[in-house]
Amino acid sequence: MKNSEARLSLVGAGPGDPDLITLKAVKALETADVILYDALANEALLAYAPETAMKIFVGKSAGMHYRQQKEINRMIVNYAVTCGHVVRLKGGDPYVFGRGHEELEYAEKHGIPTTYIPGISSAMAVAGLQGIPLTKRGVNESFWVVTGTLKDHSTARDLYFAAQSSATVVVLMGVKKLPEIVSLFKAYRGEDEPICMIQNGSKSNERSVTGKLHNILSLQEEAKLAAPAIIVIGQVVREKFLAKIQQKELARVT
Amino acid sequence: MKNSEARLSLVGAGPGDPDLITLKAVKALETADVILYDALANEALLAYAPETAMKIFVGKSAGMHYRQQKEINRMIVNYAVTCGHVVRLKGGDPYVFGRGHEELEYAEKHGIPTTYIPGISSAMAVAGLQGIPLTKRGVNESFWVVTGTLKDHSTARDLYFAAQSSATVVVLMGVKKLPEIVSLFKAYRGEDEPICMIQNGSKSNERSVTGKLHNILSLQEEAKLAAPAIIVIGQVVREKFLAKIQQKELARVT
Repeated sequence: MKNSEARLSLVGAGPGDPDLITLKAVKALETADVILYDALANEALLAYAPETAMKIFVGKSAGMHYRQQKEINRMIVNYAVTCGHVVRLKGGDPYVFGRGHEELEYAEKHGIPTTYIPGISSAMAVAGLQGIPLTKRGVNESFWVVTGTLKDHSTARDLYFAAQSSATVVVLMGVKKLPEIVSLFKAYRGEDEPICMIQNGSKSNERSVTGKLHNILSLQEEAKLAAPAIIVIGQVVREKFLAKIQQKELARVT
Repeated sequence: MKNSEARLSLVGAGPGDPDLITLKAVKALETADVILYDALANEALLAYAPETAMKIFVGKSAGMHYRQQKEINRMIVNYAVTCGHVVRLKGGDPYVFGRGHEELEYAEKHGIPTTYIPGISSAMAVAGLQGIPLTKRGVNESFWVVTGTLKDHSTARDLYFAAQSSATVVVLMGVKKLPEIVSLFKAYRGEDEPICMIQNGSKSNERSVTGKLHNILSLQEEAKLAAPAIIVIGQVVREKFLAKIQQKELARVT
């Protein structure tokens, strides 16, 4: 049953905490006829949709068959044509390693009007929620977000340039490549460069380990921190502890 | 008059469109006793605060005296101690070149409890809203956000590494440095590398120019596009037009 004109809203669900979605995304959900959602999108967000809306899981999930990208593309177009407003709800931001643009492009090719509604990417917010600013005046000039895994499963070539810069480097999907990443960064930044790994960032089951390049591998093993996790490398990681240390020092002096 | 316990919420207001703020940020505004806000934060957001809350502009504005960072730091602590819940509302995300962490650190040093509420950074969303995904499978592996202006006003050193990578490069505060940026990227990426400049991204008065490294300077001059604007460099800029071209081709064939 078609309730409204065929259209696609490509919506970022944010990093996990359901309150870190935007008002604009909520408004899109409220008018959805069909929602196609990811494993990374918080399911609590589905409650914003009308009861009558179809809610279809299309993400990867351990041990389950998951849908191919082509199949998702076709679902978007078919549901838009037959049902109306399709909301494609993706964890983080749809344009940060999310293949969101491929879906938008496919829909546009088939004449479906599209809207992109940005979300807060884990790459941006998860470090900050751990007390680590991506940039700090006098510490660094830039931040670089890179995927650890390419289509051909090689270590991303851009990591070599990133390691040479002063950038805060945020690596997504890099946990399995951690030994290679650590040895690459050691070569350019030395073994005392701070590094932090964060699992389930912004969620109630968030966990992290913080150390330096020389000890992060053993810390990770102890903590049994596994993928998916975000890796943050750079001097800004020190900021996580600085404010607390200064507070204690001030308390001691006064 | 103190209404609640002293605390600071450091809140990202998003890129400009008032619907691109998070639910969490709105909740913080609803319980604010004092709001200290930037020129970059959309003033429409102040309507979420209680009528009794003090709303104080502390941003830069053309021709006006603006407050020094130290003065803002002191205001945060003083208002928290005397009034209760201070919301520091900053455009974009507070940790992306926003000096937000300096404010949080100052407050913590003075024993004020703090919360960081991430926002959608212009660096992330503004390109996407122009139809340009920051990443696209098979096109690029990473994106790099860099400031064009350092404390010492030299061109950011990291730009040299960025130019050599496959990264989508997003330059904030770089309009005055455009000629240097263009010549640097030409050297590594050739004069046909696509580039887009966006002014007032996500707002109703959004404007942009899109071209290649060899013609962007004259296009900018024609369009009279001025600072503040965001510069996006990389092959993904082509995606802005591809979907539309393919749609036309499909229409011609079918």
